[in-house]
Amino acid sequence: MSHDPYLLTPGPLTTSLRTRQAMLRDWGSWDADFNRITGRVRERLLQIASATATHECIPLQGSGTFAVEAALGTLVPRTSGHVLVPLNGAYCQRIARIIKVLGRKLTTLDYAENAPVRAADIDAALGADPTITHVALVHCETSTGILNPLPEIAAVVARHGRGLIVDAMSSFGALEIDARRVPFDAVIAASGKCLEGPPGMGFVLARRAVLERSEGNSPSVAMDLHDQWVYMQKTTQWRFTPPTHVVAAFDCAIEQYLEEGGLVARGARYASNCRTLIAGMAKLGLKSFLPEAIQAPIIVTFHAPDSPHYVFKSFYEAVKQRGYILYPGKLTTVETFRVGCMGQLGERGIGGAVEAVGAVLAQLKAAA
Amino acid sequence: MSHDPYLLTPGPLTTSLRTRQAMLRDWGSWDADFNRITGRVRERLLQIASATATHECIPLQGSGTFAVEAALGTLVPRTSGHVLVPLNGAYCQRIARIIKVLGRKLTTLDYAENAPVRAADIDAALGADPTITHVALVHCETSTGILNPLPEIAAVVARHGRGLIVDAMSSFGALEIDARRVPFDAVIAASGKCLEGPPGMGFVLARRAVLERSEGNSPSVAMDLHDQWVYMQKTTQWRFTPPTHVVAAFDCAIEQYLEEGGLVARGARYASNCRTLIAGMAKLGLKSFLPEAIQAPIIVTFHAPDSPHYVFKSFYEAVKQRGYILYPGKLTTVETFRVGCMGQLGERGIGGAVEAVGAVLAQLKAAA
Repeated sequence: MSHDPYLLTPGPLTTSLRTRQAMLRDWGSWDADFNRITGRVRERLLQIASATATHECIPLQGSGTFAVEAALGTLVPRTSGHVLVPLNGAYCQRIARIIKVLGRKLTTLDYAENAPVRAADIDAALGADPTITHVALVHCETSTGILNPLPEIAAVVARHGRGLIVDAMSSFGALEIDARRVPFDAVIAASGKCLEGPPGMGFVLARRAVLERSEGNSPSVAMDLHDQWVYMQKTTQWRFTPPTHVVAAFDCAIEQYLEEGGLVARGARYASNCRTLIAGMAKLGLKSFLPEAIQAPIIVTFHAPDSPHYVFKSFYEAVKQRGYILYPGKLTTVETFRVGCMGQLGERGIGGAVEAVGAVLAQLKAAA
Repeated sequence: MSHDPYLLTPGPLTTSLRTRQAMLRDWGSWDADFNRITGRVRERLLQIASATATHECIPLQGSGTFAVEAALGTLVPRTSGHVLVPLNGAYCQRIARIIKVLGRKLTTLDYAENAPVRAADIDAALGADPTITHVALVHCETSTGILNPLPEIAAVVARHGRGLIVDAMSSFGALEIDARRVPFDAVIAASGKCLEGPPGMGFVLARRAVLERSEGNSPSVAMDLHDQWVYMQKTTQWRFTPPTHVVAAFDCAIEQYLEEGGLVARGARYASNCRTLIAGMAKLGLKSFLPEAIQAPIIVTFHAPDSPHYVFKSFYEAVKQRGYILYPGKLTTVETFRVGCMGQLGERGIGGAVEAVGAVLAQLKAAA
């Protein structure tokens, strides 16, 4: 294998060499040259969501989950806050857990893991309980790959005058979220996902009017987005040491994103990867878990091969030997594995990955 | 200037090219190859403090402050916790603020910024108030460069049977902290300091017995060190996406640290840098703020040049043009600037930095 294995994972993913080379320089976190990079990243992230007029971009050190917890802790009021969380996967479960640990009131709406959240259910829940102040939604549930209907849900939440907090970790930059048409209080994502930077920082696009009245809400110093925002506006710097190399590489990745053609091009590339993947795997006899209509072009869950010799770890190792790193399934009742459609997959693209899986399946069959 | 400017800052600092090149590879966060790196980093960090038998190393995404807040939130009990914080700089102030925001009881002990914390004062404070459960100490206060007498304070805290939490951000790896002789519940540091990795992750060396009984203490999901530890022990993986490139580069930086000769060699190099710096600057008429006896060999605060034409920003820019990035002062009453003694300072070493400052001072004098 001449290349390091390609990552068919939902982030960290395979970045471009140019992005990684941007980490070859050290930056002073107080220096104006570095702070210009931070400013450019913040500005472009707002532009991607057409949110410059209405929202602020607050970057945060750490993984995407840190940014999710920071957004909930900063934007949901301490005493009156009451969050409705529709549950159809591991990442909404995580949001529910964060809300509980933060001590905010929580109401959940249960779905099967292969069923998208329905706007009508949100409508009914908000109508039935006027104390609910916020809805927290996962746009694309990475645990299965399911796409929840954000625009419909956002319209319902806005009509009820509640706040919407969207975990767009696996969709931001590839699937459209336009703040002019989709009302939201916060959209949260991270550097190492569809924008194809290295992992190490998250960011929140927060409605300016909501952010302005969130002072003192946060139960944390490190994850206080209001404080992070105020300090950054005043100084152009991060409050605490930023992951300088990651920020510089993320900036470089966004530059390439824009060169590629932005959201339309990135979304089309992933959609094409997803179609090629599902069709290729089908030929190998591997069925995807979700129906096409609710499948996001980000990550696909496949049923495990129907073979008594199949063990995920060996399958994973054999495919890795052929240059591709798969991702384990996250369903408790069905044996599955996952394949990401994201990242820089090289000349052979997703087809190379399908070939590798095919070769390993043939070995498995021969061994039977 | 043929080289990117050297960072005379207390982290981020100038790393070696070899360390930065370790970021040229993408890693899957689920993959065993990456998890072996995480395991090695954790093991070696414990070895540096001779803490393998008694403590656990828990890495955390984000800056050092995230790890400090995580340690306080996880290890100090919610209801009975009462923390004594001696204050002689900005970083102890930050700890006090975190304790307040976390809602734990706080008692402070005020010092001037040029006075080290005295073990006798801690002794008296603990004797006077048996409800104090913990002392939180900053080992080296980066705001001035002052060194607090950790071994003496640790002995006092242990004699009173209380817990000691040490922010060793700017000292870990260069100044000795030996768990066999210096009793502590937690020592906290980060990747981008004396171990000379890139910024992006912190870590806590926590006493195993204390960690084991800390379940449910943390008011945060993302910063719950008990949960992070349990998950990591079970799976070898990080709970949430790790900054993979930063972790790999930090591992490479620790490798070079050991090759250099570990703590003794690193400490000696910084001490030599510090002596050369103070002597060189003295020749230029620039006086250091602290007396030598309490000056840590990490970062030195200097009084600003005595010139009516001196403005820090212009001074900073002129020195930067000559290849060195200084750090602003952090004292409110005296005009100062800071110079770090850490990092990979190239062939000309700290002498090159002194020359650059000298040349800029000559310009300033000529302009007068």
